[in-house]
Amino acid sequence: MKSVRVPTILCIPALLTAAPLHAQDIAKRPVRAPSEILRATRAEEWRSLDPANTLYVDLPGGQVIIELAPDFAPRHVENIRALARGGYFDGGAVHRVQDNFVAQWAPRRLSDGEEWPAHIRRGIDAEIDVDSEGLPFTPLPDPDTYAPEVGLVAGFPAARDPQSGRAWLVHCYGSVGAARGVDPGSGNGSELVVNIGQRGRPLDRNATIVGQVRSGMEHLSTLPRGNGPLGFHEDPPPQTTLERVRLGTDVPEAERARFQILRTDSESFRAFIIAIRSYTDDFFTYSANRLGVCDAVVPTRPTDAG
Amino acid sequence: MKSVRVPTILCIPALLTAAPLHAQDIAKRPVRAPSEILRATRAEEWRSLDPANTLYVDLPGGQVIIELAPDFAPRHVENIRALARGGYFDGGAVHRVQDNFVAQWAPRRLSDGEEWPAHIRRGIDAEIDVDSEGLPFTPLPDPDTYAPEVGLVAGFPAARDPQSGRAWLVHCYGSVGAARGVDPGSGNGSELVVNIGQRGRPLDRNATIVGQVRSGMEHLSTLPRGNGPLGFHEDPPPQTTLERVRLGTDVPEAERARFQILRTDSESFRAFIIAIRSYTDDFFTYSANRLGVCDAVVPTRPTDAG
Repeated sequence: MKSVRVPTILCIPALLTAAPLHAQDIAKRPVRAPSEILRATRAEEWRSLDPANTLYVDLPGGQVIIELAPDFAPRHVENIRALARGGYFDGGAVHRVQDNFVAQWAPRRLSDGEEWPAHIRRGIDAEIDVDSEGLPFTPLPDPDTYAPEVGLVAGFPAARDPQSGRAWLVHCYGSVGAARGVDPGSGNGSELVVNIGQRGRPLDRNATIVGQVRSGMEHLSTLPRGNGPLGFHEDPPPQTTLERVRLGTDVPEAERARFQILRTDSESFRAFIIAIRSYTDDFFTYSANRLGVCDAVVPTRPTDAG
Repeated sequence: MKSVRVPTILCIPALLTAAPLHAQDIAKRPVRAPSEILRATRAEEWRSLDPANTLYVDLPGGQVIIELAPDFAPRHVENIRALARGGYFDGGAVHRVQDNFVAQWAPRRLSDGEEWPAHIRRGIDAEIDVDSEGLPFTPLPDPDTYAPEVGLVAGFPAARDPQSGRAWLVHCYGSVGAARGVDPGSGNGSELVVNIGQRGRPLDRNATIVGQVRSGMEHLSTLPRGNGPLGFHEDPPPQTTLERVRLGTDVPEAERARFQILRTDSESFRAFIIAIRSYTDDFFTYSANRLGVCDAVVPTRPTDAG
């Protein structure tokens, strides 16, 4: 015999298409598997990224595509658009990478004598929450540690408080936030932080979330961790350069994202969530029949799949 | 002016020493800050790793130190000890790295004619849960999405069910599991999987957790993601070699871990948890006054700090 009887896989078909099932429920699998639900979606349940709300970030290792969230952080997003269009991120650097927490980048340094143009805001009050009334909020049925209710809004992991009537985006893997100092009005979207680990939720309602990475997370999550406190890169700085950061409207159509996102207010997404919450493949012998907001992955498909 | 008024930090002093504070509670900060609690600990509240339960994994990028959990997975841990002592991991490879999920490695291939010795078990029934009676379980006060109650047991994130009287380890960042196939008895600790992302909790009670990474996570979390399905490395395989894997008892004392871990059943740890749940530094303007089981970081300190 050549090998120990090796378990070749921890065979979770991507959690996206299969999730646990409660022991006592093994006999009552949902009629439709998550993969079947996705195959049966209608064309109008999928959306492409809006170029005006998409940031293409070119790193040496590859491209990161971010969907911006102007409905939650309109003034930060407006500034980010202006910074990108003005080329102020190009040549900037990822100067902080803290394991299990964040990767953070800064814009390029201005040249001698150069000034920031007037249309770029210097400081913007934190944009923490919005009126939940009328939002396309798809709630998740299970308890959350940090918020009274969690769910998805327009593809973004979110929470809301029925008592106050407020809703906010929450920090999950891939959340993009605006860095700030102690003054909640000191951020402006020029330094962005992306959650590359598990920790993040304690930041909810303290930091402005401006968007969510839709592809290319591995180009950020694999970056060398910073050698200084809080993961900041110290001298000599082995920082990663932001080669080019463009707003989608400045990206030739042929080079734009070639995937679509399942609308989280669609009937199919609601069915998908219920299915991944309780469905399983043969690997699972137990399910809590629960689904956390950061585990509620939003399905994507190649644009030509439609 | 040379720069936009840049928020230089998203200034969370490591979440380990500071966490959010509820808006309405800003005036009633706990008397003692988390850092103050740690400074006031007694020597006997700290412990060193038991060499018989510690795995030193040398990767090209650096060393990963894993604390094994024989109280939860005694038979897997026994096999892992035998595999390490027999040198069966040396020259193995990290053959799967799936972004936001796991890094997984396999033992070396046997040579022609070589057989696995009899004392290495081929398949071990999954070790999923244990009797919760008498466990040093330090509960967390907040709701959890996946389990009736969560907390820490001997430094490991865990859950328990008062109804069934069972307790189990849960999948957080750094959890080390035994890979298996569809048959729950097909794992044996020869392939280990480490959680390198946010997803994991749906695996609870399905996969055997054998331990927790205590240092060096960045040497796993930054590895190149696999180019095949589920993050498996396909040909040509850019796999990372396991240079050497040793049980602590085989590591010269001078080369063993130089840190101590705060006992999670200590008075100081209980005070620390309550403090990080509600304490904050000046950065925070809001706190949910909640703490998730995977955010309840267990403090460590250099051995010579005592």
